[in-house]
Amino acid sequence: MNEFELIDHYFRRPVLPGRRREIALGNGDDCALLSLPPGQQLAVSTDMLVEGRHFLPGTDPEALGHKALAVNLSDLAAMGAEPLAFTLALALPRVDEQWLDRFSSGLLALADAHQCALVGGDTTAGPLTLCITVMGRVPAGAALARHAAKAGDDVYVSGTVGDARLALEAHRDGQGCWQLRPEALQRVCLRMDRPTPRLALGLALRGVAHAAIDVSDGMAGDLLHVLRASAVDAEIDLESLLESPALSDDVRALPREQALTCALAGGDDYELLFTAPASARGAVVAAAAAARTPVTRIGRIRPQPGSVLSAAGLAAPPRVFWTDRQGRPVQPPARALASFDHFA
Amino acid sequence: MNEFELIDHYFRRPVLPGRRREIALGNGDDCALLSLPPGQQLAVSTDMLVEGRHFLPGTDPEALGHKALAVNLSDLAAMGAEPLAFTLALALPRVDEQWLDRFSSGLLALADAHQCALVGGDTTAGPLTLCITVMGRVPAGAALARHAAKAGDDVYVSGTVGDARLALEAHRDGQGCWQLRPEALQRVCLRMDRPTPRLALGLALRGVAHAAIDVSDGMAGDLLHVLRASAVDAEIDLESLLESPALSDDVRALPREQALTCALAGGDDYELLFTAPASARGAVVAAAAAARTPVTRIGRIRPQPGSVLSAAGLAAPPRVFWTDRQGRPVQPPARALASFDHFA
Repeated sequence: MNEFELIDHYFRRPVLPGRRREIALGNGDDCALLSLPPGQQLAVSTDMLVEGRHFLPGTDPEALGHKALAVNLSDLAAMGAEPLAFTLALALPRVDEQWLDRFSSGLLALADAHQCALVGGDTTAGPLTLCITVMGRVPAGAALARHAAKAGDDVYVSGTVGDARLALEAHRDGQGCWQLRPEALQRVCLRMDRPTPRLALGLALRGVAHAAIDVSDGMAGDLLHVLRASAVDAEIDLESLLESPALSDDVRALPREQALTCALAGGDDYELLFTAPASARGAVVAAAAAARTPVTRIGRIRPQPGSVLSAAGLAAPPRVFWTDRQGRPVQPPARALASFDHFA
Repeated sequence: MNEFELIDHYFRRPVLPGRRREIALGNGDDCALLSLPPGQQLAVSTDMLVEGRHFLPGTDPEALGHKALAVNLSDLAAMGAEPLAFTLALALPRVDEQWLDRFSSGLLALADAHQCALVGGDTTAGPLTLCITVMGRVPAGAALARHAAKAGDDVYVSGTVGDARLALEAHRDGQGCWQLRPEALQRVCLRMDRPTPRLALGLALRGVAHAAIDVSDGMAGDLLHVLRASAVDAEIDLESLLESPALSDDVRALPREQALTCALAGGDDYELLFTAPASARGAVVAAAAAARTPVTRIGRIRPQPGSVLSAAGLAAPPRVFWTDRQGRPVQPPARALASFDHFA
């Protein structure tokens, strides 16, 4: 099977019926051609997954196909954008037909579920690497940008955070510190291997939320991205977080330091962290119900005090004030605040 | 230097002044946001470059930055699309600041020259791999698609083909079969390392040419892609090709078999192969002059004879009739017809 036969067999399909108006030309040419209705903007994001770095050798190819697209769709969700199309670049050590069959099944099943058409790509020999670029659409001015958080906003997180990290720690564990019952292990592994992009929630939050980000590198670090872009601080109630539905029973059952590490530094859950004005609490509840996605309020945005730095036009580093239920300062363990860095 | 500092330092820049209307949000959020004027379509293409496969270890990073974007821009050129923006995903074995400085210089210099804004990306540790997704715009219906070649069309190629292959063979050569004078070696290496995307020509050919493709895998193989998509055959005058300006003096000076191998199976030159009606010969000359890009007429498109296969709705395999100057059949050496396959 050569490169072109491989593409034909596993990845070339007719344009999705629901996307015929937007996809003027699908894969098989130098470029794909997409149309956007007037008043819509294109949202674009790209993610690269490298074997041994983002997934373990031997990972179920069907789950990998799902996850490679899910992490990209999650970026669309965080903008409140609707999926349209994606490209796939694939470096493969060899042509393994069984692997390709399962990988493309997982990938295309998720693509179909969200009407996201595969419109182009590249296939080459090389160390197993997947690069997806996803494109969506959002009405001009309606996107949920990181820089739009306002002082006084509530801070929310969708679903549960920390499950993927718990799965990773349990997998790596040599000393039995992270031992889990088989059902719990299965549950958190599913969260790590097959994340759910929160697309319905992102769409429902248009016009309701101010800022949003997807939690890919750890909630504490991703919150800092929002704060830095919006030039604000935040206050998060750590005790409520530990008891809130934002933590699954599996994470909450851990010793405090481990639970906080999973919740704050975890990442890879692809939940949405977002802010919305206090006046929109009812609308947030309604959006969450419409999207059938639980959300938990975990804190609020605070103004950044004026400083010499900001007077000089330089951004002050944003701060997160972690508190207990009475609003008294609490310091999370350092490990729980370490955001993931690929080069650390 | 961590992942975010690396992106900030080498890749984050203000939106290009000439692109402020199109780029509503550049990099630094979950997605970039692009606008398209009404009546325009988005052209999208992606290419992945793997060290040891598409470029040699130790390749000058500045040239590599140029080439990684050039091969993608070439896909836009082949559609007659105008560059708008691109994303870059980068797997790096380690943070090498000198390498990143030169790589980003080469990449961004070419991007600026074509007003193509870097709007997003991903950086990770891993075997050196570059994946670029490029986006351009083209008026609806004006793109030069592969499937649009018509019987009776002339076949053209831009610039010179075979130089990049000659550089590769000279580089690999152990037996001295491909020895070149130092100036010639320098010339063809420059063609391999720093290809020129034929964007001006692609734009000038809108409304003039029917079908186009960029020559990345070898002229003979890429011609077959056009023929297959258009359900036509072609006739190419091999003798004229060997003497035409489509071959540089360096390639033409080779023994016949080697010259044909470079010209027909070469690839990596990123010239445009295109078809246009005979009535448009003057317009093609004018387009080439406007784009300051030489083009050479090398043959013509022939109808595919009706067959049982095509009557049954199955595509007949397209054929290329290679001829001498008198139109008599000539068979190029098999090696010259082998298109590049990453998995062969």
